[in-house]
Amino acid sequence: MLSSDSSDLIRQLKERGARRVALQFPEGLKRKAAGYVTALMAAGFEVIISGDPCYGACDLALGTLADADVLVHVGHTPVDDRPEVIFLPYTVGFDMSVLDAALPLLQGRHTGLVTTVQHVHLIPDMEKYLRSKGIDVQVAEGRGRTPLRGQVLGCCFTTARETKADQILFVGTGVFHPVGIALSTGSPVIALDPLAGTAQVVSGDTLLRRRSAVIEKARGAKSVGIIVSTKSGQRRMDLARRLASLSPVAVIVTMQEVSPDELLNLGFACYVNTACPRLAYDDQIRFPVPVLSPQEFEILCGTRSWDKYEVDEIP
Amino acid sequence: MLSSDSSDLIRQLKERGARRVALQFPEGLKRKAAGYVTALMAAGFEVIISGDPCYGACDLALGTLADADVLVHVGHTPVDDRPEVIFLPYTVGFDMSVLDAALPLLQGRHTGLVTTVQHVHLIPDMEKYLRSKGIDVQVAEGRGRTPLRGQVLGCCFTTARETKADQILFVGTGVFHPVGIALSTGSPVIALDPLAGTAQVVSGDTLLRRRSAVIEKARGAKSVGIIVSTKSGQRRMDLARRLASLSPVAVIVTMQEVSPDELLNLGFACYVNTACPRLAYDDQIRFPVPVLSPQEFEILCGTRSWDKYEVDEIP
Repeated sequence: MLSSDSSDLIRQLKERGARRVALQFPEGLKRKAAGYVTALMAAGFEVIISGDPCYGACDLALGTLADADVLVHVGHTPVDDRPEVIFLPYTVGFDMSVLDAALPLLQGRHTGLVTTVQHVHLIPDMEKYLRSKGIDVQVAEGRGRTPLRGQVLGCCFTTARETKADQILFVGTGVFHPVGIALSTGSPVIALDPLAGTAQVVSGDTLLRRRSAVIEKARGAKSVGIIVSTKSGQRRMDLARRLASLSPVAVIVTMQEVSPDELLNLGFACYVNTACPRLAYDDQIRFPVPVLSPQEFEILCGTRSWDKYEVDEIP
Repeated sequence: MLSSDSSDLIRQLKERGARRVALQFPEGLKRKAAGYVTALMAAGFEVIISGDPCYGACDLALGTLADADVLVHVGHTPVDDRPEVIFLPYTVGFDMSVLDAALPLLQGRHTGLVTTVQHVHLIPDMEKYLRSKGIDVQVAEGRGRTPLRGQVLGCCFTTARETKADQILFVGTGVFHPVGIALSTGSPVIALDPLAGTAQVVSGDTLLRRRSAVIEKARGAKSVGIIVSTKSGQRRMDLARRLASLSPVAVIVTMQEVSPDELLNLGFACYVNTACPRLAYDDQIRFPVPVLSPQEFEILCGTRSWDKYEVDEIP
């Protein structure tokens, strides 16, 4: 948890000789800002808070560094090399016995184990517990934008693929990660929610059917906006340029926040999303027109076949 | 209007030797982007569009210059010195006879005439027409962020004050500008909507009453967020630091878009807005807690008296 982190943070800040500190929190943790501010100001630091929406370390408030010596980003591990940023972990614990709910579903020979950043400190405990129950567990080392062992992100399932296991156990909340892992690995995925204590088998079939329909809806679009994010870890301009070259009616559109209102105002008949991969998959229902992933746009343009469908990741 | 501007724009771009062009449109004109893109691409330029919300030249998409030689900003005059930006006007015409609706309301000795950027090219015609009706019209030269003669912005009423007239005729839509002018000049304001063809006398009294209530609601707030915009022409960090020094519970919060959701997530009991001045006045009803102007926060902190109330402007 966060509560006891101030003293360690203050030590790190002093080591760096920082005097002016900017703080950034993801949406669910913004309310914790006040406690940090009080502790840091009492210790003599000048503090500013980034008030913009934030959903990951791909979205660093680097602009605050104009007025701060260091940016403290809470809740995520780094996705790129940023010496001017301190990444503060936010961990959520649970009792190992919640894993029992997944045991009847683990029918494969080898089980790859992955989780999200807030539970990743429990990977060794989870391995040990599962082994004690007779499960052959595989965990892949972290790398790239998932630096921790067994860690996955919504845009990066490398540690799931690299287990090479014939089934994956995902420990975390929501279905986006397990669906992405299913599509990325081609293996069955068992999703265990450690807070609810429930487990389910997750497949990518429904997503694939939905995405197929979205691609068909985009066919014949007279104008295509290729969205490029201006966020630090989501900016894929080279990919966007390559995609724009596939269609004479495609234009690159830069955006900080990809919002339904702005897509409507811009008036394109279809968009291709090179920002956070989850936007196209999760938020289609909020968008006024089809928003395709890069791979889906390639299918639409005929440069990729449907049976080479891949889920979009930022490696 | 915009339609015939492409050829002139292309000439300007060629003169600069630009090859890669970024385009930025305010919300109401974003749909016109497609026409520009087609014309510029046919002329051999590489084009990208800024898709972020935009409400003024205070909000330039300077980030696009990482991928473009020049930024073309449509619809506003510059608020600061930006040699890398081409400002393209957007004009809206009307027939002089619509001014007749204001004539019965012009009872003062001298009438100061002001308007917004889309009508400012008609200032000479308006002067001539009003004089032909026996009105003694005064128009002040432009300066600062209102560079054109007779121009006002929602954050700058200098050209109204400098007429030193005993009443002001504002030509334009909405009531924010005339209310601001009334508070800024202390003179009666006649607001003429040239599209609806209606005129009314506008006073600042209702706004003052509402703002007085908001200040009272903020009294005793246990935490105060001093909002600093990260937009190019709205960033008033020095002002924010001075305001933060007035209260031990005030912290600076940087924001790109000041949205009700983010104010709620951050959880401060009260905010002070140093971004676009209109936000506090226009959008209080959307905000979850009191959002004060800089001057209102000074009143709350006791460093300014209520009878020195001033409307917030960025000169």
